[in-house]
Amino acid sequence: MGEKVVLAYSGGLDTSVILKWLCSSGHDVTAYIADVGQAQDFSAAREKALAIGASSVFVDDLKEEFVGNYVFKALKANCMYEGSYLLGTSLARPVIAKGQVEFARKEGANVLAHGATGKGNDQVRFELAYLSLMPGAEIISPWKDAKFLEAFNGRSDMIKYAEKHGIPVQATVQKPYSTDENLMHTSYESGILEDAGAAPGNDMFVKTASPQKAPDKEEKISVEFKTGIPVKAANLGSGSLAQGGVQIMEFLNSLGGACGIGRVDMVENRFVGIKSRGVYESPGAAILWKAHRDIEGLTLDREVSHLKDTLMPKISELIYNGFWFSPEMDFLMSAVEQSQKHVTGEVFMTLYKGNAIVTGRKSKEALYSPLLSSMDSHGGFNQQDSKGFIRVNAVRLQASAKRDLQ
Amino acid sequence: MGEKVVLAYSGGLDTSVILKWLCSSGHDVTAYIADVGQAQDFSAAREKALAIGASSVFVDDLKEEFVGNYVFKALKANCMYEGSYLLGTSLARPVIAKGQVEFARKEGANVLAHGATGKGNDQVRFELAYLSLMPGAEIISPWKDAKFLEAFNGRSDMIKYAEKHGIPVQATVQKPYSTDENLMHTSYESGILEDAGAAPGNDMFVKTASPQKAPDKEEKISVEFKTGIPVKAANLGSGSLAQGGVQIMEFLNSLGGACGIGRVDMVENRFVGIKSRGVYESPGAAILWKAHRDIEGLTLDREVSHLKDTLMPKISELIYNGFWFSPEMDFLMSAVEQSQKHVTGEVFMTLYKGNAIVTGRKSKEALYSPLLSSMDSHGGFNQQDSKGFIRVNAVRLQASAKRDLQ
Amino acid sequence: MGEKVVLAYSGGLDTSVILKWLCSSGHDVTAYIADVGQAQDFSAAREKALAIGASSVFVDDLKEEFVGNYVFKALKANCMYEGSYLLGTSLARPVIAKGQVEFARKEGANVLAHGATGKGNDQVRFELAYLSLMPGAEIISPWKDAKFLEAFNGRSDMIKYAEKHGIPVQATVQKPYSTDENLMHTSYESGILEDAGAAPGNDMFVKTASPQKAPDKEEKISVEFKTGIPVKAANLGSGSLAQGGVQIMEFLNSLGGACGIGRVDMVENRFVGIKSRGVYESPGAAILWKAHRDIEGLTLDREVSHLKDTLMPKISELIYNGFWFSPEMDFLMSAVEQSQKHVTGEVFMTLYKGNAIVTGRKSKEALYSPLLSSMDSHGGFNQQDSKGFIRVNAVRLQASAKRDLQ
Amino acid sequence: MGEKVVLAYSGGLDTSVILKWLCSSGHDVTAYIADVGQAQDFSAAREKALAIGASSVFVDDLKEEFVGNYVFKALKANCMYEGSYLLGTSLARPVIAKGQVEFARKEGANVLAHGATGKGNDQVRFELAYLSLMPGAEIISPWKDAKFLEAFNGRSDMIKYAEKHGIPVQATVQKPYSTDENLMHTSYESGILEDAGAAPGNDMFVKTASPQKAPDKEEKISVEFKTGIPVKAANLGSGSLAQGGVQIMEFLNSLGGACGIGRVDMVENRFVGIKSRGVYESPGAAILWKAHRDIEGLTLDREVSHLKDTLMPKISELIYNGFWFSPEMDFLMSAVEQSQKHVTGEVFMTLYKGNAIVTGRKSKEALYSPLLSSMDSHGGFNQQDSKGFIRVNAVRLQASAKRDLQ
Repeated sequence: MGEKVVLAYSGGLDTSVILKWLCSSGHDVTAYIADVGQAQDFSAAREKALAIGASSVFVDDLKEEFVGNYVFKALKANCMYEGSYLLGTSLARPVIAKGQVEFARKEGANVLAHGATGKGNDQVRFELAYLSLMPGAEIISPWKDAKFLEAFNGRSDMIKYAEKHGIPVQATVQKPYSTDENLMHTSYESGILEDAGAAPGNDMFVKTASPQKAPDKEEKISVEFKTGIPVKAANLGSGSLAQGGVQIMEFLNSLGGACGIGRVDMVENRFVGIKSRGVYESPGAAILWKAHRDIEGLTLDREVSHLKDTLMPKISELIYNGFWFSPEMDFLMSAVEQSQKHVTGEVFMTLYKGNAIVTGRKSKEALYSPLLSSMDSHGGFNQQDSKGFIRVNAVRLQASAKRDLQ
Repeated sequence: MGEKVVLAYSGGLDTSVILKWLCSSGHDVTAYIADVGQAQDFSAAREKALAIGASSVFVDDLKEEFVGNYVFKALKANCMYEGSYLLGTSLARPVIAKGQVEFARKEGANVLAHGATGKGNDQVRFELAYLSLMPGAEIISPWKDAKFLEAFNGRSDMIKYAEKHGIPVQATVQKPYSTDENLMHTSYESGILEDAGAAPGNDMFVKTASPQKAPDKEEKISVEFKTGIPVKAANLGSGSLAQGGVQIMEFLNSLGGACGIGRVDMVENRFVGIKSRGVYESPGAAILWKAHRDIEGLTLDREVSHLKDTLMPKISELIYNGFWFSPEMDFLMSAVEQSQKHVTGEVFMTLYKGNAIVTGRKSKEALYSPLLSSMDSHGGFNQQDSKGFIRVNAVRLQASAKRDLQ
Repeated sequence: MGEKVVLAYSGGLDTSVILKWLCSSGHDVTAYIADVGQAQDFSAAREKALAIGASSVFVDDLKEEFVGNYVFKALKANCMYEGSYLLGTSLARPVIAKGQVEFARKEGANVLAHGATGKGNDQVRFELAYLSLMPGAEIISPWKDAKFLEAFNGRSDMIKYAEKHGIPVQATVQKPYSTDENLMHTSYESGILEDAGAAPGNDMFVKTASPQKAPDKEEKISVEFKTGIPVKAANLGSGSLAQGGVQIMEFLNSLGGACGIGRVDMVENRFVGIKSRGVYESPGAAILWKAHRDIEGLTLDREVSHLKDTLMPKISELIYNGFWFSPEMDFLMSAVEQSQKHVTGEVFMTLYKGNAIVTGRKSKEALYSPLLSSMDSHGGFNQQDSKGFIRVNAVRLQASAKRDLQ
Repeated sequence: MGEKVVLAYSGGLDTSVILKWLCSSGHDVTAYIADVGQAQDFSAAREKALAIGASSVFVDDLKEEFVGNYVFKALKANCMYEGSYLLGTSLARPVIAKGQVEFARKEGANVLAHGATGKGNDQVRFELAYLSLMPGAEIISPWKDAKFLEAFNGRSDMIKYAEKHGIPVQATVQKPYSTDENLMHTSYESGILEDAGAAPGNDMFVKTASPQKAPDKEEKISVEFKTGIPVKAANLGSGSLAQGGVQIMEFLNSLGGACGIGRVDMVENRFVGIKSRGVYESPGAAILWKAHRDIEGLTLDREVSHLKDTLMPKISELIYNGFWFSPEMDFLMSAVEQSQKHVTGEVFMTLYKGNAIVTGRKSKEALYSPLLSSMDSHGGFNQQDSKGFIRVNAVRLQASAKRDLQ
């Protein structure tokens, strides 16, 4: 039998065809199925992989690791790609790649395969992670393989191949877009979405109601942070609450999704230089991002906050481009981690038909002092000090201005 | 008679008392009233100033300049202070200061006065602008003046003084917060808002309905940009439209305000080192900011976009801190202006109960190509190129990884 | 005859072999020889190309354009790659590529070829420039061509091929390193230089004496700038002077080179992810860079200067990586150009055995005021203002410190 | 007796007069003398302070702490203010302030005094450090005190006061500039140096020979780093060597100073908005800075190195402006510290008449691989990968270029 290959297997048409194709080319293929919180029947996927020819299948529950070590790290940095995208897929790829590499190590395999296309970001994320974690690994990426591309010139070739080899093709109508799902978000791109001028239909979304269809009802919640990490979320109306990363994500996805929160529609820039239209829904993350930013307002020093804002686009770019495992991420995240030691406290919000409204916040670690900030009181701050402050700040401005007036 | 002073006069209690106080100390005071779009009876303010003792009054219509040369410049840079605040007051202060200085020049005056307090940001914005535009100007800032502070130890002293000198004190109940209004936004701080844990009542807001009280009805609109500047906004339902900066702001304030868009509640960092709770409503600006960002997605190069994101926090900080007229603003804005030459196109949005939802966009200057981005097609991009792209990007990562594994 | 190819031709072994190889494969090859100030017999090179089989040869004098539009732009930004390298080769590649593309346009050719290897930076600089200036151009890059690499597995294959085809191989002994020369610098890498622990011999250098061998004699010079651009350089001892970009470079190369100025030895990071040892000598540029920085000290606003310092590494990276013609360079350089409007004045220096010592500077545009800065005088600055300045700056620090002490 | 004051005492005229003045105003003054490596007779200074009226004197040896926790931290970040200044005084102020505060705590004092003027940077560095380390401390800064300024309108008033009160005034002629000295550098400003067009005489310098007067003799040295910190310096000629921070600084100051290394002459920007001419000599630091940068070339990842270069100006600005003890320094230095874990190895240099020439470097942690970088070998890097790398990098550039050509 051929060389051992560990394939990141999703159970869908593409990776099923790839699995068969790899087996047919004489490889000994193990299917690695990552559970990052997507809605999926994992035993069915296992059976399917074995039926196609996988020599073994491993279903890896990565949910805790995904939320705790990936989503919440991006949250600490307030990461947002190009002003909108919370990086749900970008964050899932490295945790899957890491699980796959660790599994390959156990299996003694040195060849890793994935089904991401050659025009997208995911191929980069998978492969840079593979090579960072297992330098020298051999990678099989069929969508960049000349033979594979020759054999499969589109979806219909894959369906024919599947039918010929007895691979079950989903009976349901093919979705007119591609999608990726995990505990943090569901993403949509391609197909009908390529018309950047047209809005997708509301039936596309799986995690959120539209603001328009969400019930006309407020949900009052609180989110509690400890050193930058969400530790508790509560529905103040029902009294229900969640603790622990995965539970908080599920809880807020459910509440936020029902309230129509967290949809994004944008034209974004892929790492391979192509602009692409993406649609996302990440209800829980949208709530957490807003709450985290707010509690930082109360507890984080001004200059640290502004430096974080300046570094955030770079960190987001690194995550988006697949550099999660890189010296520069370690470098920047050392600063971010350091900044969170006092980011502790509670944020109160109202969720309502697409809105996540901060209504208040409190913290024992607050740097905010009502007395100090009050315009009505003279206490705690000598207003006459501002005179010198302004004058000294103006010294240089006046020198420039005088020269300009010459 | 004493030295000529030009006072930035609002018509309210504070600047009225200051006007009287300056006259009483022997100054020849001219009242400068800036119209930046606030709801105000300017003839009443004029009469009031004259009655109090102003030797003359000048009402300056700055609306066009404010929107065109201040608001839209910040829009080009996507400015947002600390992730939320669109800088409505920060942008108005320099245009007022500039108008006041130009007026002082005409009047032959070298002394400028304002009523901003000694703990806030506005004093800095006024005074740095004064000194940049009129280096060597003399500034009277009563709230940092020892004599004035001795005489007025709070609001009740001012009311007593006003009553004693026949200055009309507004009959209506004093608002339990302070506020600033212009064509771009209304801001609220101090008083009851100093409790950062408690939400303000809905009756405080003047420009926006709450999302909850906004009508259950979508408004479909389009916003058109030319080289980064909004040139047209249309209500696609009613067919009504607006052209020109001031008209577009008013049009979108009205539509967006009715739909409950643009409220912000945050704890922010003042330039004087104090944290402060601020509440803002800027319906039209919120819509424009979102639309501008979106049309940049379609038309702006990736690297320029990411560099702009990196510089944006600094530009916002400069505006917030009062450095609108400064060499560093000129430096950074040269790059921003250059970036906008292709930021042309139209964005389609749905406004609904607090949501400004982008539903599509189009541009003749688009860098987006559906063919290029399509995952279904091989056209326009050789997927095998990605192989080399990824491998070369991984060279350095593997070198580091190998060292770490040693 | 085959398709028309414009080859960037240097006259050396590599591009001569490539020229022959292209002709042999049926191409109609025009040799494009760029004169960027390297010491070369251009008529000999022309004859050689024609003898090998070029259908025509064009020698393009790019010296003025190189200095004026490339070297001096980098100077305005104080560009320095990784703290040391003044980018002499990185700046020459785009001007050559531009000349080559313009020539190809005139010739009606759409195919561009160059002889840079597949592991270096120059291939990237050439090809990104080609594709930016002539999108869709076809590129022939033999060192990345499978057939060529098969045919030529090293230098000896090339010599054999040359001898077989009557291409004159330089009689002189092959240098044990590779080199690139232009008006700004000479660079050395590869070969014996790959031992990063060993210093190159002094006989390698062509533009500079070593500090040790330079005469024990000072040269006193002045350099004059107008809006950031060097407009005059003078030898204050001999009275000789130079005006105009090319003349100034030649003048300072000669003076500085004799004085042993401008050698750099470093391990740098190539764009393709490889670390590489590079040795450079750029005597004139080293003097200009130091002088420009110094005159900025006298004339440039502090905040602009610090922002420039922050952006400089990015601009240098872009130049090094081959993104001279890119939207992001245009973006950043807009700011840099704007900053130079007052960078006017004269710098006085002593050149001595490797040292370029600034001894004084003067400018009518100086922001420096001896009276203002004097510690001995109270004039022009109210020292008591510093009290408020410091106290206000400390407000936030004390708030953090108090929290830390809790 | 009055409140207890701890005065940073230097033994010079200014702080001696201040000491007397404080005692005369009824304070109980303790003189705090920091030993940061300046050439000084500390027992004479102690006696002088007691004679003037200090209730006690404490001489604090801060040399180890200064070098280890201040100088070497700045070295890790390659800090350089405005391209030239290595921050010798800026780094000494916070360590002195910290020593003074710790001493005040032991003494139960809450009042701190220093003799820095009201136009300079040192007042800010002292006072921000005091207030960060002892929030709420009372500060006496005579040069910003109205009464003191009234009493002392210049140097002659101080000499008269000193003579009247029996304070010994140095017999030697007053130096026509002010100076600050420590183990890292000696600085000069004011007085004759205020003429920015004129070079200081060579007799001013105490740590360095001029390049011109330095012996015509090379010194070959090596400097060894471990995780970014210098751990050994050796004179390869004599065989002498130094280990430990203070010893290495002294060793390299001596060697480098004799060889004329480390002089800087610049016009710089003070935090209070004034431009100022400064002259510095820091021979050992100049050598270490160059060596550290070089060993980073060999061992540091490219992207980390470029990010460090981008952050360096900000870190240097913070140090220069007195924000050593601040949340933002802690934030940025977390990243810098993380980056140094592999910055280990040895750098070889030749010191000669003002030149510190790197001649080679080696490290067991090198990321440099001669095989990989070699232009002569195909090994370790597939040159054809560069094809895809370049093409993908050009995708976006071509899209922009095509639009521009429309």
